[in-house]
Amino acid sequence: MSNNPNFQPLNLLEYESLASQHLSQMAFDYYASGAWDEVTLRDNRAAFDQFRLRPKMLVDVSKRNLTTTILGHILQFPLLIAPMAFQCLANPEGELATARAAAKAGVGMILSTLATKSIEEVAQASLNSSPSPLNWFQLYIHRDRGLTQALIERASSAGYKALCLTVDAPLLGRRERDQRNHFSLPSGMQLANISSSGLGISHSDTESDLFTYFAYQLDPSITWKDLEWVQSISPLPLVLKGILRADDAVRAVEAGAKAIIVSNHGGRQLDGAIASLNALSEVVDAVAGSVDVLVD
Amino acid sequence: MSNNPNFQPLNLLEYESLASQHLSQMAFDYYASGAWDEVTLRDNRAAFDQFRLRPKMLVDVSKRNLTTTILGHILQFPLLIAPMAFQCLANPEGELATARAAAKAGVGMILSTLATKSIEEVAQASLNSSPSPLNWFQLYIHRDRGLTQALIERASSAGYKALCLTVDAPLLGRRERDQRNHFSLPSGMQLANISSSGLGISHSDTESDLFTYFAYQLDPSITWKDLEWVQSISPLPLVLKGILRADDAVRAVEAGAKAIIVSNHGGRQLDGAIASLNALSEVVDAVAGSVDVLVD
Amino acid sequence: MSNNPNFQPLNLLEYESLASQHLSQMAFDYYASGAWDEVTLRDNRAAFDQFRLRPKMLVDVSKRNLTTTILGHILQFPLLIAPMAFQCLANPEGELATARAAAKAGVGMILSTLATKSIEEVAQASLNSSPSPLNWFQLYIHRDRGLTQALIERASSAGYKALCLTVDAPLLGRRERDQRNHFSLPSGMQLANISSSGLGISHSDTESDLFTYFAYQLDPSITWKDLEWVQSISPLPLVLKGILRADDAVRAVEAGAKAIIVSNHGGRQLDGAIASLNALSEVVDAVAGSVDVLVD
Amino acid sequence: MSNNPNFQPLNLLEYESLASQHLSQMAFDYYASGAWDEVTLRDNRAAFDQFRLRPKMLVDVSKRNLTTTILGHILQFPLLIAPMAFQCLANPEGELATARAAAKAGVGMILSTLATKSIEEVAQASLNSSPSPLNWFQLYIHRDRGLTQALIERASSAGYKALCLTVDAPLLGRRERDQRNHFSLPSGMQLANISSSGLGISHSDTESDLFTYFAYQLDPSITWKDLEWVQSISPLPLVLKGILRADDAVRAVEAGAKAIIVSNHGGRQLDGAIASLNALSEVVDAVAGSVDVLVD
Repeated sequence: MSNNPNFQPLNLLEYESLASQHLSQMAFDYYASGAWDEVTLRDNRAAFDQFRLRPKMLVDVSKRNLTTTILGHILQFPLLIAPMAFQCLANPEGELATARAAAKAGVGMILSTLATKSIEEVAQASLNSSPSPLNWFQLYIHRDRGLTQALIERASSAGYKALCLTVDAPLLGRRERDQRNHFSLPSGMQLANISSSGLGISHSDTESDLFTYFAYQLDPSITWKDLEWVQSISPLPLVLKGILRADDAVRAVEAGAKAIIVSNHGGRQLDGAIASLNALSEVVDAVAGSVDVLVD
Repeated sequence: MSNNPNFQPLNLLEYESLASQHLSQMAFDYYASGAWDEVTLRDNRAAFDQFRLRPKMLVDVSKRNLTTTILGHILQFPLLIAPMAFQCLANPEGELATARAAAKAGVGMILSTLATKSIEEVAQASLNSSPSPLNWFQLYIHRDRGLTQALIERASSAGYKALCLTVDAPLLGRRERDQRNHFSLPSGMQLANISSSGLGISHSDTESDLFTYFAYQLDPSITWKDLEWVQSISPLPLVLKGILRADDAVRAVEAGAKAIIVSNHGGRQLDGAIASLNALSEVVDAVAGSVDVLVD
Repeated sequence: MSNNPNFQPLNLLEYESLASQHLSQMAFDYYASGAWDEVTLRDNRAAFDQFRLRPKMLVDVSKRNLTTTILGHILQFPLLIAPMAFQCLANPEGELATARAAAKAGVGMILSTLATKSIEEVAQASLNSSPSPLNWFQLYIHRDRGLTQALIERASSAGYKALCLTVDAPLLGRRERDQRNHFSLPSGMQLANISSSGLGISHSDTESDLFTYFAYQLDPSITWKDLEWVQSISPLPLVLKGILRADDAVRAVEAGAKAIIVSNHGGRQLDGAIASLNALSEVVDAVAGSVDVLVD
Repeated sequence: MSNNPNFQPLNLLEYESLASQHLSQMAFDYYASGAWDEVTLRDNRAAFDQFRLRPKMLVDVSKRNLTTTILGHILQFPLLIAPMAFQCLANPEGELATARAAAKAGVGMILSTLATKSIEEVAQASLNSSPSPLNWFQLYIHRDRGLTQALIERASSAGYKALCLTVDAPLLGRRERDQRNHFSLPSGMQLANISSSGLGISHSDTESDLFTYFAYQLDPSITWKDLEWVQSISPLPLVLKGILRADDAVRAVEAGAKAIIVSNHGGRQLDGAIASLNALSEVVDAVAGSVDVLVD
């Protein structure tokens, strides 16, 4: 497939293969890799192959409806694009292109704190779409609470519909491919929503810039109590991303979360963690319909 | 094996290897591929390897009898050849050769709606065989009910012994190899039983012709109620092909089916569906001997 | 390893590799292959890898005793060499060398009906060994009962200690490698104990000579009742080789067998049969110590 | 990775790969291989991949504490370096370098009886470290009890904090790679703590020198009773290394052991033994907190 400039990918694996040809090694590895030995990265995919469907026949499927409602918003297809950082690594339009594509397809988009386009630009990109787009803002709580509060307020002002707090990354998982590549943003590319601080400041010889960023900028002391602070700043519904256990799911509901994303961060945080799909049913059972549950 | 013109295949895998040498890529892929990621295609075969036999010894096997009775017809070997479309892709004699071989071996044949030889020609091909051949007609219900009724009446008139209604294909499974090949019938080859409509009319750039045919010609609204209509047209016993669940099996019996073929369409429809063999026992248990059960 | 003439094998896999270099393809395949798709052949080995030992520590192992008693005979090591046919294919000394090696190692030997050395020669080969050798005779019941009776009487006269009746081969498993090779004994080699009949008479183009031999010479009608006949001819204890089920094991004891060999014929008969090791515990439980149980 | 002299390994697999480039085949194989077919060697690693973690989120991890206490000594990280023999094979500094590294990292070190640096030198190597180093002495009981007693007394005098008696090696597992390499210590290298006897005396053509050493020098008759003798000589706490069963664990506690190392000797003794990790929970349950439990 690699020699044919007219090659049209038919599935995600073929897109991944194309990406490996068009992206730099550093960018491709950033997107494709997992933490440590990548046991969980592999298991995330294997878990889907282990489920089997038992379809019913002779059902009228002449009209098929894939719409769903999430936090009161109707989606044409039950999908929100996960918050992926640094999308300008893949294309100069970065998160703007993603926002436009999501709106066009009628699916949601979750903008990463570590975006390379600004909160406001991304909101603007799909502003006039119809039906109205669904954008959420993914939040990391920084040691600098003023910075964090500013991010929340900007997302709220710009029309984002929820705050999606990532709870599984108090420290960054050691991603060996990023270490090997001394991962850093290319010259001229920067975090669009975090002034002064951020990647690119000090290139460590032994760690990726992202690892250093997490270690120095993000707050590893966050607990359930901090959710009160987040909710006190913004009326936006709170979504917790990174829950893998029934007990945590129950606690999330008690703490006011309006939706839960069952996720192990794509195998990029704690290697050896249970596959997201395998954690789904215990979370669904635990919340018993009281909040929406998504799986990563 | 590929260099020896006198090579004699000993098993199906060797026949498949020979086929890959003698058929066009488009034809071979049509026969060999499954839907999407081909998870179910692989699982169909793997399921057979997971069963273990526990044989009894010191049994007199000097006389071995493999005959069986299906819908009142005696077969020399408990097999009916599945309804495979477009057999002229493999050999100019197409379904005629298959009918003659089936009759000679004393097994049954199920003729596909999408055959490249006519219902009447195929019936004729094995007419004088002894013992008498067992041919069934596989039916797709088209949006054009007149066309559908005509197919049923022709099969009945031509001496077919049952109508085998495929219930697992209201829409065609996305078969990526066919998409990649822009699958279409070669020039000069056509559906022998469906005038005017059919494959080869419009070659889509992004879908196989077969996918388009299913989307435009077949009726995706079929439900259990439509079985009454089929049975009102023809006195032939009704066989449902594509059942994978006990509840559907019970309903099939209630709806008047005389036999059930447990099948996931060879992994060519819903990828991720349970392996046919793994669905067999629940169907057998559910019907409790009230109808014949076959597995694909 | 293959280039070093001084290579010393350390384990059975290395011996197998050496054998593949020194034997003809036909001979190697005869020994190494299984029936049909060789599912059971592979499973026989895999079953051993699935068991785990839970050793006890701080046990005095300064004196280790591997001797065992089988049908009243003491072995230095709990092993009898399985009845393998045509041993002259591997070495001109054939079964004579095996008999001498077995006697020297203090293990037993089971001579195949299809040996290429005579019953008497083999008995002679280890006659003066000390401790006294343990030879059993493996029996196939031929359609020609006179021939069968003669084999039994010769084994008895020559000092064999048991009759080991193979019960899992009323017909030969289809061994595709033998078919591919048109397996037959090389010119000048013959069955040493079966005059006139035997391999080499008619070379079929589509079957191995061994397959033909089984089909024409051996009796596929043998049942439990025939064990009475065998026991009426000879006072030798009867061993049944090829039992894979508890119910058959119980019946074997009732029929007078003095030992059972749990075996699927090395995966060379019914492909898909349970691994011998996996059938062992149910047989051991079923006979409850009333007879000796061996596993193949 | 192999062509880059500046390559920095990121994980143990990369260190292993580097080691394979820098060590002689004999030395690398000695460290890397297991007994017989290496089933247990592979299973030891596979067992870790089969466990899945179910992490709790929103826990304050700003302060992380990996210290632990073992037999009253505080470690900065819950690890003791296993007693590996012949460390001068890897580096001229051998066990001295290991002792210094362990002290610097705040982990423990277990010195092998078969060290290539003396008990006293190794104790000296990390003497002035702060916090104080934790060294244990691994003991094999020799047929020569005087020699054994001398080893114990030297370890005690030199400040070792525990005697770690290996109980799973009354005879050496047959390590085929060592056999193939006729493993022996290079000229000029010797056992530093065992005068006169030891490796290098007679190079067998068919066994490794280590195998011969075990067979002639070590005592295979050791039982639970001998633990009394060991404890009568030295006040050092006794640790048993090589326990894989709950019953043995209970007995170890009764016999006075103060800690247990659940181990199958790295898959180098009884091949087919249960993976160490899979034996851990039964041992932990059995001792119910009465002694410390480590896993190898």
